Amino acid sequence: MADQYAQTPSGTEPPALPALRWEEPPEGPVVVLLDQTRLPAEEVELVCTDVHALVRAIQTLAVRGAPLLGIAGAYGVALAAARGFDVEESAALLAEARPTAVNLGHGVRRVAGAYRAALEKGADRQQAAAAALAEARALHREDAEASARMAAHGLALVDELLPGGGHRILTHCNTGALVSGGEGTAFAVALAAHRSGRLRRLWVDETRPLLQGARLTAYEAARHGLAYTLLTDNAAGSLFAAGEVDAVLIGADRIAADGSVANKIGSYPLAVLAKYHHVPFIVVAPLTTIDPGTPDGASIEVEQRSGQEVTELTAPPQVMMAHGVTGGGLPVAPLGTQAYNPAFDVTPPELVTAIVTEEGAVSPVTAGGIAELCARSRQVTIS
Amino acid sequence: MADQYAQTPSGTEPPALPALRWEEPPEGPVVVLLDQTRLPAEEVELVCTDVHALVRAIQTLAVRGAPLLGIAGAYGVALAAARGFDVEESAALLAEARPTAVNLGHGVRRVAGAYRAALEKGADRQQAAAAALAEARALHREDAEASARMAAHGLALVDELLPGGGHRILTHCNTGALVSGGEGTAFAVALAAHRSGRLRRLWVDETRPLLQGARLTAYEAARHGLAYTLLTDNAAGSLFAAGEVDAVLIGADRIAADGSVANKIGSYPLAVLAKYHHVPFIVVAPLTTIDPGTPDGASIEVEQRSGQEVTELTAPPQVMMAHGVTGGGLPVAPLGTQAYNPAFDVTPPELVTAIVTEEGAVSPVTAGGIAELCARSRQVTIS
Repeated sequence: MADQYAQTPSGTEPPALPALRWEEPPEGPVVVLLDQTRLPAEEVELVCTDVHALVRAIQTLAVRGAPLLGIAGAYGVALAAARGFDVEESAALLAEARPTAVNLGHGVRRVAGAYRAALEKGADRQQAAAAALAEARALHREDAEASARMAAHGLALVDELLPGGGHRILTHCNTGALVSGGEGTAFAVALAAHRSGRLRRLWVDETRPLLQGARLTAYEAARHGLAYTLLTDNAAGSLFAAGEVDAVLIGADRIAADGSVANKIGSYPLAVLAKYHHVPFIVVAPLTTIDPGTPDGASIEVEQRSGQEVTELTAPPQVMMAHGVTGGGLPVAPLGTQAYNPAFDVTPPELVTAIVTEEGAVSPVTAGGIAELCARSRQVTIS
Repeated sequence: MADQYAQTPSGTEPPALPALRWEEPPEGPVVVLLDQTRLPAEEVELVCTDVHALVRAIQTLAVRGAPLLGIAGAYGVALAAARGFDVEESAALLAEARPTAVNLGHGVRRVAGAYRAALEKGADRQQAAAAALAEARALHREDAEASARMAAHGLALVDELLPGGGHRILTHCNTGALVSGGEGTAFAVALAAHRSGRLRRLWVDETRPLLQGARLTAYEAARHGLAYTLLTDNAAGSLFAAGEVDAVLIGADRIAADGSVANKIGSYPLAVLAKYHHVPFIVVAPLTTIDPGTPDGASIEVEQRSGQEVTELTAPPQVMMAHGVTGGGLPVAPLGTQAYNPAFDVTPPELVTAIVTEEGAVSPVTAGGIAELCARSRQVTIS
C-alpha cells in the first residue's frame, strides 16, 4: 500500500513550518504533514494519500497536538470524500485514532457533517467532497485565527498578572505552530511576549517520554530566537523554589465541562507546584478543546501508551541513523521491566488560574464560566 | 596511566553485588568498583589503582550514592597511604570530587584523621597506612550495619503510618545495595517491606537525566523479585492523584542542620506532591549525611552538571555498542540548546514527614530533633 511517502521540502530557506497542508497533485489529492517524529534532526514531509496513512501518522505522533489533530481529522474526512472512499467509515477510523484529544473528533464530525448535509441537499459525491474540503479549510483558517486571538488574550492576561514584565514562563510539551493552523496555543502567547520584548526566559520542560519539549518546543523557540533553556521535567521544582518561574503556560487536549484539563503527562505536577508557589497556571486552548459532553476530570479517558516508550530511549530517525543505531530503541531498564505510561494527566479546575481561549479567558475556572464562554462563542458564530 | 581497568566477575551466579571492595593482588592494593554506568546491561568491575582513577570514577558516576561515596572516599585515602602517595593531597582531591554529598568528605576526613593520628603516635608510614585501611574497613562495616538498622526503623515507621499494610511506595533515584556497604537506605526499607510481605508495589521514578531509577533501582528490584513498575518522573503526579501512592521513600546526599534535604533532582517536586496529597514523605539516610556545618537549605551547594546530559540521550555503553551507536550521545534538542541541569534539589524540613537514620527517626523534622539525634549517636559511640 503506497499510501504514505516522505519528501524533503525543496529550497534553501527553512520551510515556513506548515505542520499540515492539503495538496492536489495530478495523482490526486493528498494531506501533507511535517513528520514531527523526525524533528529537530530533519524536516521531512509525510504525504498521506488515504485515511489509513493518516491514522497511522496520528498514532505514531508524526502529527500531534490537540488543535492540529482537529485539522488533520477534518482534512482526513475531506481526503476520503475526494478519493471516493467510504466517508462514514473513514470518519469513524479517524475519530478513534487517539482517545483523549477532543479536537480530533470535533474536526472529523464537522467535516463529515458538511459532507452529509451536502448530500442531503441533493449534491452529488463530487460536490459533497468539495463541500467537505471547504469545511476543512474553514476549520483550518478558523484555527489560525483562534491562535492569534488566544495569543493576544493570553499576553494581556500575563501582563495583567505580572505587571513588572520580564516574564519567565515555564512550558511543557509542545504547543506552537506544530500543533496548529496558526502559531499555536501556549507557545503563541510566549511568542507574543517575546515579540513585545516582555519575555525574559522560556523554560522548556523536555517532556518525557517522547521529548516533545526538547525536540519540538526547543526547535520552535530556537527558530524564533527566543531566550530559552531546556530542563528535565523533574528540575522544574528547583526553578519554582528559586523564584525563577513567573507563570506556567500549557495547552490542553480535552477540557471537561467542570474545567478539568487533560494535557500531556507532567502537566498536573506543574499545576501542584504552581499552586504551592503561588505562581499562575494558565491553560491556553481553543474552544474546540472544551467538551461539554465530558462532565468532569474523572470522565476523561486517558490514553495509555506502550511501556517501551519509557524502557527504551529513542532519538529522531536521522540521529539514530547518523549514529549507526540499529535495531530500534536503546533499552535502559532491565529486560521485562513493566512501565506505567499514561500519555496525559488531568488537572482539576481549582489548580488552574485561567483558561484562555480565542473568545477570552475564564478565571476563576468554573463550570458556569466555561458554559458562558461556550455560549458567547455560539452567539458570535450565529450572529 | 594504567590506573583503571575493567574486569568481568567470574562464575555463573549473578555477582553478590558488592558495589565496592578492597583487594590486595600481588601488584599492590586496589579499590574495585562495580561500574554503575554500565548497569543494567552488564556487570563490569572497575579496578582503581590510584586516587586519580577513583576521582574519575566518582565524577563519571561509575561509583555514586551518598553512603557509598563515603566508603569510596575512605578507601581512597587508604589506597593513597598503602601505595605511598601523598595522603593529604589525595584526601583533598577526593573530598572535592563532588560538592554536594557530605558523606564523601566525611569518609575522607575520618580515614585521613586515622592516618595522621597513627603518625603522630610514632607509627611509620606502613603502620599508618594499615591504620587508615582499618578505619576504612570499620566505616564500611558500620555503613552496612547502619543500612540494616535504617531498614528496621524505616519499616517500623511505614507500618505505623500505614497500618493497613499492602504498601505502595514511590521512590526516586537509586538507594539500594549499589549506594551502600549494606542494602542501602530508602530501598532497604522497601526491601524489608517486601520480605515481610507488606510491599504491594514499588513505583520507580526513572530519574532523568541519568536514569538511575530505570537502570539501577529497576535492576535491584528485579534482582530481589519485588513487584515494581517504572515510570517517567512526570507521571508520579497521576499516581498521587489516583491514590496509588501510600508513601514516598528517598535517600539524601546532604541534610542541613535545620533538616533541609539535598537529594537527587526531582525529589523536591515529589515532596510538594506528597504534601498536597497528604502522603508521608520519608527520607532515609545514615547520620553521616547530616552536616551540622550547613545551617540550612540555602547554604547547600548544588552541583550543576553538563547540559549535554539533557540535550543528548545516552544508554549504558554495552547497549550503545550492541546497537552500533558511534559518536557518543544521541542529540535530541536543536544544536546550541542550553540546558539547566542541577544534580540535586533541596527539600525544606516542613515537607519532610520524617528522617530515618540508623539511630531512629526524627518526626517532625526540626533542628532540635536532628541535633538530639546526632547527640544520641555520639553518646552511643562514646559509651
